Amino acid sequence: MFGEGIIVATASATGGAIAVIRLSGEGAIECCDAIFRGRKALSTVASHTIHYGNIVDNNTVIDDVVVAVFRAPHSYTGEDSIEISAHGSQYITTQIIELLCRHGARLAEPGEFSARAFAAGRIDLSQAEAVADIIAADSKAAHTLATTQMRGGYSEALNSLRDSLIELTALLELELDFGEEDVEFADRTRLKTMLDKTTSVVERLMDSFHTGNAIRNGVGVAIVGAPNVGKSTLLNRLVGEERAMVSDIAGTTRDTIEESVVIDGIRFRFIDTAGIRKTDDRLEKMGIDRTLKAVERAHIVISMAEPNGEFESVKLDKNQHLIKVVNKSDTTTEHSVENSLYISARENIGIDALCQALRQTVDTTALYRGDAVVSNARHFESLRKAHIALLAASQALTDNISSELLTEDIRVAINHIGEITGRITSDTILQSIFSSFCIGK
Amino acid sequence: MFGEGIIVATASATGGAIAVIRLSGEGAIECCDAIFRGRKALSTVASHTIHYGNIVDNNTVIDDVVVAVFRAPHSYTGEDSIEISAHGSQYITTQIIELLCRHGARLAEPGEFSARAFAAGRIDLSQAEAVADIIAADSKAAHTLATTQMRGGYSEALNSLRDSLIELTALLELELDFGEEDVEFADRTRLKTMLDKTTSVVERLMDSFHTGNAIRNGVGVAIVGAPNVGKSTLLNRLVGEERAMVSDIAGTTRDTIEESVVIDGIRFRFIDTAGIRKTDDRLEKMGIDRTLKAVERAHIVISMAEPNGEFESVKLDKNQHLIKVVNKSDTTTEHSVENSLYISARENIGIDALCQALRQTVDTTALYRGDAVVSNARHFESLRKAHIALLAASQALTDNISSELLTEDIRVAINHIGEITGRITSDTILQSIFSSFCIGK
Repeated sequence: MFGEGIIVATASATGGAIAVIRLSGEGAIECCDAIFRGRKALSTVASHTIHYGNIVDNNTVIDDVVVAVFRAPHSYTGEDSIEISAHGSQYITTQIIELLCRHGARLAEPGEFSARAFAAGRIDLSQAEAVADIIAADSKAAHTLATTQMRGGYSEALNSLRDSLIELTALLELELDFGEEDVEFADRTRLKTMLDKTTSVVERLMDSFHTGNAIRNGVGVAIVGAPNVGKSTLLNRLVGEERAMVSDIAGTTRDTIEESVVIDGIRFRFIDTAGIRKTDDRLEKMGIDRTLKAVERAHIVISMAEPNGEFESVKLDKNQHLIKVVNKSDTTTEHSVENSLYISARENIGIDALCQALRQTVDTTALYRGDAVVSNARHFESLRKAHIALLAASQALTDNISSELLTEDIRVAINHIGEITGRITSDTILQSIFSSFCIGK
Repeated sequence: MFGEGIIVATASATGGAIAVIRLSGEGAIECCDAIFRGRKALSTVASHTIHYGNIVDNNTVIDDVVVAVFRAPHSYTGEDSIEISAHGSQYITTQIIELLCRHGARLAEPGEFSARAFAAGRIDLSQAEAVADIIAADSKAAHTLATTQMRGGYSEALNSLRDSLIELTALLELELDFGEEDVEFADRTRLKTMLDKTTSVVERLMDSFHTGNAIRNGVGVAIVGAPNVGKSTLLNRLVGEERAMVSDIAGTTRDTIEESVVIDGIRFRFIDTAGIRKTDDRLEKMGIDRTLKAVERAHIVISMAEPNGEFESVKLDKNQHLIKVVNKSDTTTEHSVENSLYISARENIGIDALCQALRQTVDTTALYRGDAVVSNARHFESLRKAHIALLAASQALTDNISSELLTEDIRVAINHIGEITGRITSDTILQSIFSSFCIGK
């Protein structure tokens, strides 16, 4: 998939006090020695040691640096690796990388360091993907999700699932081998129990995707309601700053506005929408269309009304949560609408209760317990295909279909589950996964 | 100036694959041990070694990291120091820094690591300033300037200058001690020669500021000429992209436009200006005012005319360079204006020769030979004050004024030169220098 040779890239973002340049591959240490002047040649030093010196181009000093030496297999990639900490200047990092390329290195492709770690068996595919997630994580829950996946807990759950299915096929094969003697080794009831148990694990994982995906990408919350009911005021209150333009002219918000707030470790993406009403204004009509789309995609819909107003009718699917909110509650003492939160966005009344209600829609019990939670669409797709195969196998078992066909169904499920951790994979899949990484990782 | 204790900050920019967190001060290693789980406690390991492990908050793993240990005095600050390489996520770096702060560290002020290196005598003041310059350097010349200063060559030149003056005062004091015996130990002619030699070194350094400052901040080039002569076309040609709006309507360029190009290791900042002409348009008048100011500040003025047109009259001071350019040279065969370059910006004729002419205005011989070149306005100001004192001393020597007053003048010069490398300094100066640094340096 990727090429051979010594690869080099900046691993840190430039613009700080220091920049880190990463070099990996057979001969990486010697390659660095060609441009490094320190007390000792790097090729003579122990792994996991740091050396102060100069990076030189012939006799011109490019920078004072510290170089860290990692010898195979004890490095991220499993290969001989070098990390150069230089001053954080774009000019210097460019010069050093050019210099290393003149001495046999080449620029790394995006994700190539992680791809090598995968190729060397140091991490599996879902762990490699988690590295990208961990860098992007911006809330406690998203970080926990990525960390569990990166540290292998997630892979263990999938591998144990796969092992159960392999055990099943082993039992079925035993039956096949002795088939001519007409001995039914595998007790079909026992097989059915095993299969059902495994299928329910797959279903639990699939169910977790709804939460996992929301946590990874932020929980979408659409705020809907009649014009002038106070949607933008609520958004401003939640975000804590004057983000949305507020006025008392109905129809002020023409476009959807999105803002992120982390509540108790979960990132919520609030989408302020145009009020839904009959209008001849073409721009406002477009805004209303966008509102309807935002509602469709949202995890939670906050439906907002005035004390004596009506709630918009919104159609939700089974995975969506509805929170009914009566705004401007400070203008009335009658709090009689059932299953509704009475708030005043302007007067900051009832906002904490609303935040709690939002937070309760996201169940993080399994996540914080360390259970495997699926957050990656690729993984969900593999599980979905495995699930179809398992249902077919279950049907085959019920219909007393031959073991050969049954085994075939289970094998399909095994392969799909193997795709997640990369036991079964293709160059095309690998390429598409690693190329979405940043360079230097 | 700065406080005590263990300081912590992100040293790399966030957003890359990895982020580096720096920790320094007595107890820094133990502080890190409190949140690090690896094979060994960091307090037991050798200096300049790297250790893989987890950063943990009680039993929650925040990240997989590698930690580099530097023991006093062999670190940047001269103190016990730690560098944690974590995944490059804002969430993770914030968590780790908070965690370290809970275990006794505090957030570093901007420049505080370098200030400690200065306080520990590991670098002098001009070297500390060079660290900031080296990070900002974006051309070969600016980088060479900062490198020479950072590596101490510059400080050596200033220290040797200061030593000469101290030697002078020693000779004068010898005379004072034996003054009552009316013995004139110091040969006044020899003193005068020594003083003149030192003064000329100071003058050479002061002269170098013009070039040094231009290299450090980019060489300003104002392009002036009558409306529609092709100034914007030339800027576009030099920059190699359509930056300035070009049209054949006279007066298209209302504001000054600045673009940077590196030519042979020097960064030039080209300033396209409004054509100077009589106009009633208020906006255009403002543009012309800005043109005149841009010319005043420029290192080089390119004055541009058409083949049979006239050059604008521009008033230059002695440090400014004028390059006369006849544009649209492809429309005529008569190339008779003396001391002028014939070019066609549109047809890409004569542009190389113009670049060479630009480059030749900046003499980098001394710079690339490794001579001290002054690029910092603070240093120039100290040299200027030292120079005044030295001229006074020279006059005193000529006028046969008493050795006491002569010595006093030379002491003033010594102090001003000492300010540059920080031998003589005040908290106020230090504060203002280090606070302009980025955090983590």
